[in-house]
Amino acid sequence: MKARVHITLKTGVLDPQGKAIGKALGTLGFEGVGEVRQGKLIEIELAETDPARAEASVRDMCEKLLANTVIEKYDVELVG
Amino acid sequence: MKARVHITLKTGVLDPQGKAIGKALGTLGFEGVGEVRQGKLIEIELAETDPARAEASVRDMCEKLLANTVIEKYDVELVG
Repeated sequence: MKARVHITLKTGVLDPQGKAIGKALGTLGFEGVGEVRQGKLIEIELAETDPARAEASVRDMCEKLLANTVIEKYDVELVG
Repeated sequence: MKARVHITLKTGVLDPQGKAIGKALGTLGFEGVGEVRQGKLIEIELAETDPARAEASVRDMCEKLLANTVIEKYDVELVG
């Protein structure tokens, strides 16, 4: 089983990296680009086959290591 | 319209950051963790309302700025 974790900054937290990307897109001539936010994507292969247990385990990984829950939120998706 | 872009390393490209996360998860006591790969997630607000044109524009952004297509692959998803 594979888990895909999206980690993004919470709404309201300043994202200078996203801002830089937005500015660069404008410089390159792309029009109509609004807010850009950058986050992380982590894909994890798991030996666990039970979806509920796999999701619980990945959420635990997010709390303990993957996300800084003070400023970041995460979202776990199981694939395959 | 909002686009969500997933940028990941191509299969076969070494991912030391992913490896480090995998090792750290093992150290924390998580069992059955296989390969871990880290990628980027970029969310872009677009003024464009036509889905086909929005997707074409975001793919163009990926080719020109967001992804290093020598080692990375990207995947565009339109939301809302």
